[in-house]
Amino acid sequence: MNKPNMHYAELKDSYLFYNISQKIKAYLEQNPGTHLYRMGIGDVSRPLCEEVIKALHGAVDDQAGAETFHGYMPEQGAPFLRETIAKHYASRGVKLESDEVFVSSGASDELGDILDLFDRENSALVIEPAYPAYVDANVIAGRKIVHLPAGRKNGFLPSPSEDAVADIIYICSPNNPTGAVFNKVQLKEWVDFANKNGSVILFDAAYEAFIEDDTLPRSIFEIEGARTCAIEICSLSKTAGFTGTRLGYTVIPKDLVREGLRFNDMWVRNRTTKTNGVSYIIQRGGAAVFTDEGRRQIMENIRYYKNNAKILTDALDELGIWYTGGKNAPYVWMECPKGLKSWELFDILLTKAQVVGTPGEGFGACGEGYFRFSSFGSREDTVEAAERIKKLFG
Amino acid sequence: MNKPNMHYAELKDSYLFYNISQKIKAYLEQNPGTHLYRMGIGDVSRPLCEEVIKALHGAVDDQAGAETFHGYMPEQGAPFLRETIAKHYASRGVKLESDEVFVSSGASDELGDILDLFDRENSALVIEPAYPAYVDANVIAGRKIVHLPAGRKNGFLPSPSEDAVADIIYICSPNNPTGAVFNKVQLKEWVDFANKNGSVILFDAAYEAFIEDDTLPRSIFEIEGARTCAIEICSLSKTAGFTGTRLGYTVIPKDLVREGLRFNDMWVRNRTTKTNGVSYIIQRGGAAVFTDEGRRQIMENIRYYKNNAKILTDALDELGIWYTGGKNAPYVWMECPKGLKSWELFDILLTKAQVVGTPGEGFGACGEGYFRFSSFGSREDTVEAAERIKKLFG
Repeated sequence: MNKPNMHYAELKDSYLFYNISQKIKAYLEQNPGTHLYRMGIGDVSRPLCEEVIKALHGAVDDQAGAETFHGYMPEQGAPFLRETIAKHYASRGVKLESDEVFVSSGASDELGDILDLFDRENSALVIEPAYPAYVDANVIAGRKIVHLPAGRKNGFLPSPSEDAVADIIYICSPNNPTGAVFNKVQLKEWVDFANKNGSVILFDAAYEAFIEDDTLPRSIFEIEGARTCAIEICSLSKTAGFTGTRLGYTVIPKDLVREGLRFNDMWVRNRTTKTNGVSYIIQRGGAAVFTDEGRRQIMENIRYYKNNAKILTDALDELGIWYTGGKNAPYVWMECPKGLKSWELFDILLTKAQVVGTPGEGFGACGEGYFRFSSFGSREDTVEAAERIKKLFG
Repeated sequence: MNKPNMHYAELKDSYLFYNISQKIKAYLEQNPGTHLYRMGIGDVSRPLCEEVIKALHGAVDDQAGAETFHGYMPEQGAPFLRETIAKHYASRGVKLESDEVFVSSGASDELGDILDLFDRENSALVIEPAYPAYVDANVIAGRKIVHLPAGRKNGFLPSPSEDAVADIIYICSPNNPTGAVFNKVQLKEWVDFANKNGSVILFDAAYEAFIEDDTLPRSIFEIEGARTCAIEICSLSKTAGFTGTRLGYTVIPKDLVREGLRFNDMWVRNRTTKTNGVSYIIQRGGAAVFTDEGRRQIMENIRYYKNNAKILTDALDELGIWYTGGKNAPYVWMECPKGLKSWELFDILLTKAQVVGTPGEGFGACGEGYFRFSSFGSREDTVEAAERIKKLFG
């Protein structure tokens, strides 16, 4: 008798976005036609840049001609893209071999797949508040989760603790949902901690392109010792607007070895067994992101979003409300004013100001009392939302 | 201390395609400039059809405009594509709800990912000769493999046996490498066997578009009882030349339940946790395959390949060599003439006729004495290869 993976029954239902949509629906039924200022979305809103569009069209044309047609791609990624990404790292002072770079369909896909490299008896450390999939993917595998709560005291950037040791450590920096970014000294603590305990860090760098402070690490491989304890998972979703186009990349250094097994070799074997690579067309589009002109164009979009973030943080500064994020991240994580709980603030913002955000409680218990705004909306909506928040709490 | 998934160390190295490439390399070094007739490739050679190219360009244009831009797609697939595929099944008499159809990045990706739904204590039945990834993906998960050897006696289409019961059953029809296709009576035996034992069939239908005999099942869901025991995994790779463009789909009927868990619900939860869906651009391209004009155009390519297969099987018929496949499949699986071993035949074909094929031994021990030709090459090469085979063994 076939037995399903019973760990699926242990997953908790996630009501966060469902509850938000239900509350919005009820409000709009009572107030038909009202415009809402949606500052909650985690998706980008600006189209792909010209260089990427040009490359995508070119690649589609390649697939139309007998001489230029591409069949099966190398499972680890097209050499042209792996080399381009390795050079991109080199330009920022991180030396990688191109076969330490693997092309993926995106960070969320990779965060799910990569767990196959680890024994199911491993434990996984999640710094909360956190992206819910970190926990869920490990629950599905039957792994023990170690929760490390963050808070205002440490700016939502906790140090490692001997009371919270685990075999796999998730670090997301710039962080979703808090927008907080580890500096080099803080990240070195985590790298040393992982090396000491033999842990492996899964470093989620999906938002690295939003870092403008040059002293902050964009890659964990800027930190000495990371090559023996870390895997870095990157995405073009927020960097270049690829949320619906899908492309990411992962760095697995050859120095990452446990019990005599090299994770880079294991991942080659995983990919050649379990995929036939990422679409040629999308890989060509992705490569355009790393050209000089592509870089210039995607930075325009990132600046657009970051100006949105500044409009929000300027409003919070004016109101004297504590927050993290915004400066080097697309998310702003604020303390709820007047001691409100996060769902209370949600209701007030929706009904009094028609502004929609994301209650911090949805990212874990220690997110209670906090609230996330995203900068991915339109300029007009962001300006108006900021005005309304100021009017409400000023 | 992090422990890797030690099952990776149990994987056997696959030397099949490596050995082939080494032998070719050595031959070309000794005979520089020689043209080889490559009848071994499992990849398509003809470009994407016009309708698909048009849809891909249109979707790229969508991603360039603020009003038409698509961000995150539904994780289970775009509704337009799920509905299109459900209608395609309906047109062939198989009734499905559109949320029983999941869009994937391709069959190989899905065959790897879907195993997450099963307990690791399950056993997996593989009919040999077989696509090596069936075994490898289960070795990585630590599952016990039950091998069921096929042979000439049963036309490489074995019946289920009480001596080879397993929790997961792989069936590939039309088969890679043998090209053999189960008829409805034979497939019904497997469905009944699975229902009796509570097994789940993973039905790999990657080559269904090559079936021209209308009495043969293109989908396992043409068989009564399959909705309670089967998952069907499909691909546009060979159907529409998507090997490098990447798109597939999977059918998980809502009636498939074990120990109170519904696999369809579990897969929704898996996808929403472990992916952010398939590229909007590629899904638009895929939808064009199911339009009337798209269908007409892809059938032109399939007929091209099948005419290649006919050229090969006509030659074998003339020589009186026993084979399976070719008629309803892109592969021709022949018995090696004169009692040759499959690698001996490889060497003779390469050195005496400059024809490259795939030794059956590479697909499992019971493939010894057999040899695979593919029909995915060019017409000119196929004609000349057939002539050379006739001259060699005539």
